[in-house]
Amino acid sequence: MMKLYYTADTCALASHIALNDAGAAYSTVRISFADEEQRKPEYLAVNPKGRVPALVTDQGILTETPAMLAFIAQSFPEARLAPLDDPFRFAQVQAFNSYLCATLHVAHAHRMRGHRWANNPASFADMQRKVPESVAACYRLIEDGMLAGPWVMGETYTICDPYLFTLAKWMEGDGVDPSRFPGVSGHRRRMSERPQVQDAIAQELA
Amino acid sequence: MMKLYYTADTCALASHIALNDAGAAYSTVRISFADEEQRKPEYLAVNPKGRVPALVTDQGILTETPAMLAFIAQSFPEARLAPLDDPFRFAQVQAFNSYLCATLHVAHAHRMRGHRWANNPASFADMQRKVPESVAACYRLIEDGMLAGPWVMGETYTICDPYLFTLAKWMEGDGVDPSRFPGVSGHRRRMSERPQVQDAIAQELA
Repeated sequence: MMKLYYTADTCALASHIALNDAGAAYSTVRISFADEEQRKPEYLAVNPKGRVPALVTDQGILTETPAMLAFIAQSFPEARLAPLDDPFRFAQVQAFNSYLCATLHVAHAHRMRGHRWANNPASFADMQRKVPESVAACYRLIEDGMLAGPWVMGETYTICDPYLFTLAKWMEGDGVDPSRFPGVSGHRRRMSERPQVQDAIAQELA
Repeated sequence: MMKLYYTADTCALASHIALNDAGAAYSTVRISFADEEQRKPEYLAVNPKGRVPALVTDQGILTETPAMLAFIAQSFPEARLAPLDDPFRFAQVQAFNSYLCATLHVAHAHRMRGHRWANNPASFADMQRKVPESVAACYRLIEDGMLAGPWVMGETYTICDPYLFTLAKWMEGDGVDPSRFPGVSGHRRRMSERPQVQDAIAQELA
C-alpha cells in the first residue's frame, strides 16, 4: 500500500486527488510546516529535499509531483489517467505538468518563499509585489492555449487536472482575479464537484 | 523528421544530445536571444511561452525539457534511454529531471533572469549574490544522494545524463566550485567525452 506524505494546502493535494482518481489503496502522513517537521531528521530520511509531497511505494520513495502523477497513472492503467500508449499525447500531459511545476508554482512561491533565492527583506517585498503579474501571466497562457476544456487535455480527464486545480486554488491568495480567467475558473468549479477531490480535501482538513 | 528550436548554451542542449543519443533524424533552428527572436511573432507561433527549447514533431510541437526528453526516449525505445517498462524506475528518471527543471535550473535563473520575479535592480543584485549558495545546495543533494554513478541512474545511461550535463556546464558561471562535487565533475567529464555530446555542442557553436 502506498503512503503519501503531505501538508495541507500544498501541491501534495494533486497527488492525493490522483490517488483517489486511480482507486488506489493508500495511507497518508501529515507533515506540519508550522512545527518545521519537513526539516527534521525523521522526514529528511524520507525526502532529503525537505519538501512535500513524498510517496512511499513498494519499490521505494518518489518525490516531485509530475513524476508522482505519471507513476500513479502508469501504476493504475485501468483508471485511464494519462494517454499511456501515445508518446506524443503523454508528452503533452508531461509538458503541461512541467510548466505548472517549474513556472507557475515557482512564480507563486515568490510570495512566501523568497528566502530560497534572496536574503534581503526588501527583495522579498519586491518579489511579493510581482506575484500577481507573474502568476497571472501563467494563467493567461493556460487560459488562451493550454486548457482545451472541459478538462486540460480536452474531453478526457488526466493527471493534468488535479494539478491545475491544486495550484489554481491559490489564485486569490496570489492577487489574481479568477474572473479574468473563465476557463480556469470553470475548470476549478468542475473539479471541486468531483467526489475524489472533495474526499482528498476533507482528509487534509480533518 | 523532428526539428529542434534551440539557443546555444541553454537547456536546449539536453534535448539536442538526447536526439543524438537516440539516433534520431532531426534538423535545428537557432533562436538568437541577442536579437530577442524568442519574443517575435514568428517564434511565438511555435512556442507561445517565448522560451527555448521547442521540438516540432510529426504530431505537433512539444516544449518543456523533461517532457521532450521522455518523448525522445519513448519514440526511440531501441536506444534504451529510459526504463520504459518499469513505472517506478521511469518515475525516478522523471523525478530527477523534474528536480533539475524546477529547482536547479530555477536557482540558476536568478542570476540573469531576476526580472521574471522582481522589479528592482537591488533585488536582482541580492538574487545574484545568493546563486552560488542556492545552486550549490542543489549540487550537494545531487552529489550525496541522487547521482548513483557512473551515470545518474547507475550503470545505465538515461535521459537524466544529458540534462545534468547541460546544467552542470553552468557551475563555474554560477560561482560554484566543481571540485566540491567530484561525482558531478566526473559525470561532466564522462559526458564531455561522448561523441553524441561533442557533436551537439559543435553544431550549436558552428
